[in-house]
Amino acid sequence: MSEPSERPEAEDEREEEAYALGVDLVAGVVDALAEGDDAGVRALVAPLHAADFADLLEQIDSDDRAGLIRAVGAELDAEALSELDESVLDEVLSYVDPAVLAAAVKELNSDDVVYLVEDLEDEHKARLLGALDDDERVIVEQSLAYPEYSAGRMMQRELVKAPPFWTVGDMIDAMRAAEELPDPFYEVIVVDPGMKPIGTIPVGRIMGTTRPVPLAEIMSEDFRAIPATQKSEDVAYAFSQYHLVSAPVVDEDGRLVGVITIDDAVEAMDEEAEEDILRLGGVGDESISDRVRDIARSRFPWLAVNLVTAVLASMVIDVFEDVIAAYVALAVLMPIVASMGGNAGTQTLTVAVRALATRDLTASNMWRVVLRETLVGLMNGLGFAILIGIIGYLWFSDAMLGFVLAITMIGNLLVAALAGILVPITLDRFGADPALASGTFVTTVTDIVGFFLFLGLGGALLL
Amino acid sequence: MSEPSERPEAEDEREEEAYALGVDLVAGVVDALAEGDDAGVRALVAPLHAADFADLLEQIDSDDRAGLIRAVGAELDAEALSELDESVLDEVLSYVDPAVLAAAVKELNSDDVVYLVEDLEDEHKARLLGALDDDERVIVEQSLAYPEYSAGRMMQRELVKAPPFWTVGDMIDAMRAAEELPDPFYEVIVVDPGMKPIGTIPVGRIMGTTRPVPLAEIMSEDFRAIPATQKSEDVAYAFSQYHLVSAPVVDEDGRLVGVITIDDAVEAMDEEAEEDILRLGGVGDESISDRVRDIARSRFPWLAVNLVTAVLASMVIDVFEDVIAAYVALAVLMPIVASMGGNAGTQTLTVAVRALATRDLTASNMWRVVLRETLVGLMNGLGFAILIGIIGYLWFSDAMLGFVLAITMIGNLLVAALAGILVPITLDRFGADPALASGTFVTTVTDIVGFFLFLGLGGALLL
Repeated sequence: MSEPSERPEAEDEREEEAYALGVDLVAGVVDALAEGDDAGVRALVAPLHAADFADLLEQIDSDDRAGLIRAVGAELDAEALSELDESVLDEVLSYVDPAVLAAAVKELNSDDVVYLVEDLEDEHKARLLGALDDDERVIVEQSLAYPEYSAGRMMQRELVKAPPFWTVGDMIDAMRAAEELPDPFYEVIVVDPGMKPIGTIPVGRIMGTTRPVPLAEIMSEDFRAIPATQKSEDVAYAFSQYHLVSAPVVDEDGRLVGVITIDDAVEAMDEEAEEDILRLGGVGDESISDRVRDIARSRFPWLAVNLVTAVLASMVIDVFEDVIAAYVALAVLMPIVASMGGNAGTQTLTVAVRALATRDLTASNMWRVVLRETLVGLMNGLGFAILIGIIGYLWFSDAMLGFVLAITMIGNLLVAALAGILVPITLDRFGADPALASGTFVTTVTDIVGFFLFLGLGGALLL
Repeated sequence: MSEPSERPEAEDEREEEAYALGVDLVAGVVDALAEGDDAGVRALVAPLHAADFADLLEQIDSDDRAGLIRAVGAELDAEALSELDESVLDEVLSYVDPAVLAAAVKELNSDDVVYLVEDLEDEHKARLLGALDDDERVIVEQSLAYPEYSAGRMMQRELVKAPPFWTVGDMIDAMRAAEELPDPFYEVIVVDPGMKPIGTIPVGRIMGTTRPVPLAEIMSEDFRAIPATQKSEDVAYAFSQYHLVSAPVVDEDGRLVGVITIDDAVEAMDEEAEEDILRLGGVGDESISDRVRDIARSRFPWLAVNLVTAVLASMVIDVFEDVIAAYVALAVLMPIVASMGGNAGTQTLTVAVRALATRDLTASNMWRVVLRETLVGLMNGLGFAILIGIIGYLWFSDAMLGFVLAITMIGNLLVAALAGILVPITLDRFGADPALASGTFVTTVTDIVGFFLFLGLGGALLL
C-alpha cells in the first residue's frame, strides 16, 4: 500500500476504546437482565452518558431492550431516546411507559422532539405529541411542516434574542432573570422590531464587555442567516466551511424562527459522509441494527442492477466465443482485465465523489481535473502494460499474447480514468447524487470496453 | 435503486451552491490576473471568507496562485493559509513575502500555526517559526513535540482558566480586563493550584448567574479531560458522541496544557470520513490538487496488489482450462459470477467498515452481526440463484448449466457475506485499519471461491 502507516493505528486497544461503551458493561447488563436484577441493571447504567445508553440499547437484542427499558423505568433520560438510531427507535418507544415518556419528552429541546416524532408510526406519534404542552406542540408541528432533511427540521426553537438598543447590562440582567437558558447556547441573536435578525454576539464577547455598551456596538453583522427550507447537507457544509457553532434560521420573510447549533450540523455531516460511503459500496440507508429481511431487501435492487450489467459484459464475451474456444488462455486472463479496469475506475470515482462532496471539484477546475485523471490513467496504464505483458509472455510463452494484454491494459486504464471522472461529474450536473450507482456504471464501462479490446485484439492477432 | 430519492437532491442549482465559491468569481479572478489588474483582483476577493479564499487558491493553477498572492500582498489573511490543503500549502507559502507572513501568523491561534508549520519543508518552517515571538514559538514547539494526529497537535493554547474560589463577579471583571479573549471561546476551565482542571463552565451559564456566586458552585465536574497524546480520531469520536464544543487537554501529569474546540474536532471527523472513503476505494491520502505524477505513484501500489490477486484468480481458471475448452459458455458466464460475488462482498464490507468506525459494531454484538450477514447472504443468494439459473437455462438452453450457475450463486453470496464481515473485523482486531485493502481481500476470496465452484461444478456436471 502506498501509505501503510502515516497514522499509527490502534496498538493501544485500551485507549482506542476509551470512550466507547465497554464490552464488559454490555455483558454485565445482559447478565443482570437475565437474572431479573433490576437494581443491578440501574446501578450499571446510571453513570452512562445518554449517547452511550442509546448505543447499549442498539447493541443488545429485542428481549433485552424491553427488559432494560422496564428496569430503568422512570429514570429514563429522554436524551437517550433522541440519540437512538431510527431502526430501533420505534421498537424502544413501544416499551416506554406513556407517563414516563410524557415526562421525559418535556425536558428535550424542540429539535430533539422533532427527531423523535418525525419517523414514528402514527400511533406513537399522536401519543408523543399528546404529551406536550399546547404551545410546545405547535412549535414541533411547525418544524414538521418543513421538508425532511431541511434546516427547519434541524433547528431548535429555544434561543436568546435581544433588541439592538439593549446594553450589555440589560442583556446580563435579562439572562439572570430567565427561568432557564437554552442548552446549548452560544450566541445572542439581535433582532429588529420585525423579528429579522440583524446581528449575532458570541456569549463570550458579551462577558468581555462592560455593562453600558449597547449590543448594536458589539454585534457581528456578517453572520449567516439560514433559510428554513435549506437542505441539511448545505447547512452542514456551511458550518464546516465557516467554522460556525450556531446560526439563526429564518422563514421566507426573513423572520427569525429558530437556531441551528453545531451538534445538529455535526449529525448532518455524519449522515452525509455515511450516505456517500454506503452508496459507493452499493448499499442504501441501512443500519447494523436493521432486521435481516430489511437488509436483504434493501440490498437486492443494487445487486439486481449489477446482474444486468454483468450480463451485458457476458454478452460481449459471447460474441467472441469462437476466439475463446480456439485460444483458451484468453479466458484464463479475462479476470485480470476486468479487475484492473474496475479497480482503476473505482479509484478515480472515489476521489471524484469525495471532491464533489467537499466542493473541491467544481465547474472551475473540472476540465483540469479530467485532464489530470486521464494522464494518471495513461501513466499507470503504461506501467501495468509492461508488467502484465511480461506476465502474459512468461506464463503462456507467447509474445503476441503479452502484447495483446499490454495494449488492452493501456486502453482499459484510460477508459477507467475517463469513466471514473466523467460519470460522477455528469450525475452531479443532472442533479443526481454522484455516489449513487456510479460504481456500477463505471465497472460496466470498464468491463465491456476491456473485454471487447482484449478479445477483439486477441482474435485479430492470435488466431 | 432501493431509496432513489428519500432526500430531494439538487434541482435548485442556485441554492445548492449558495455557500460555495462561485464559478463566475473564480473566472473573474483568473481574468483579472491575466490582465494584471491587481486592484480588480483585490476588489473581487475582499468579501471572501478565509475558507473560500483558500478554496480559490486550490482551484486555480500554479501561475495564478503566485499572481493572486502577489496581488493581495499585505492584505493576506493568515486564516486562509491555515485553511489550505497540505498539497498546495508549501507552494503558496513560497509566494508569500516573508514580512507579510510574519505579520499574518501572529494573528493566528497556536493550533493554526502548528498546522501551518507541521508539514512544511525545513526552510519554510524555520522562517515561519522565526517570525513568532519567543514565548509563542515555545508554545508551538511544545505542541509539535506531540505525535502527529494527536490531541496535542489539535489543541490551542489560548484559553480562559480560573480558580474555584473566584465568584462570577471576579470572573466577569477578569474577562472585561483581559486585553483579548480567545476566539473561539465557549468554556471557562476551573483549575486547582496544581493547574489540574477540576471543572468547566459554559460561558452562557456564567452570564445567567449573579455576581456573588462562586465558580465552584456552578461548574460541571463530569467534564472530559483529553490526554494530549490521545489520537485525533478518538478525540473526534468523543466530540461527536457527547456533543462537546470544547474540552480541556491535559499532559501526562493531568495538568491543563490547552483546549480543543469543536472546529478542530470537525476537521478531524472530516479527515476520518475521508480516509475511510478513500481507502475503501483503494486510494491513499490524495487530494484533487496533487500533481499527476504524485497521484499516479500513490495509486500504483494498490493496483499492483490487485494485479497479484487477479493473477491468483486467473490461476484458478487455468486449472480448469480443459473444462472451458470443452464448454465455452462457462467462460462467457464467468464475469457474472465474479461481479455478483464482488458486489455482494463489497456491500457487506462497506457496512461493516462504517459500523466499526462509528463503533456500532463491537465485540458485544459481533457474532450476532456475523450471523445476520450470513443470513442476508443466504437469502439474496437464493433469490439470485433462481434468477440467474433461469437466465443461464434460457441463454444456453441447458438446464444443467442453469443449475450449476444457481448453486454457484448461493455459495458465492454466502462466501461474500462471510468474507465481507470477517475480513474487516479481523483487521480491526489486529489493530489494522479495516478500510485498508479490505476490498482487495474480499474480492480475491469471492473471485477464487466463485471460479472454483463454478468451473469445478461445471466440469463435474456438464462434461
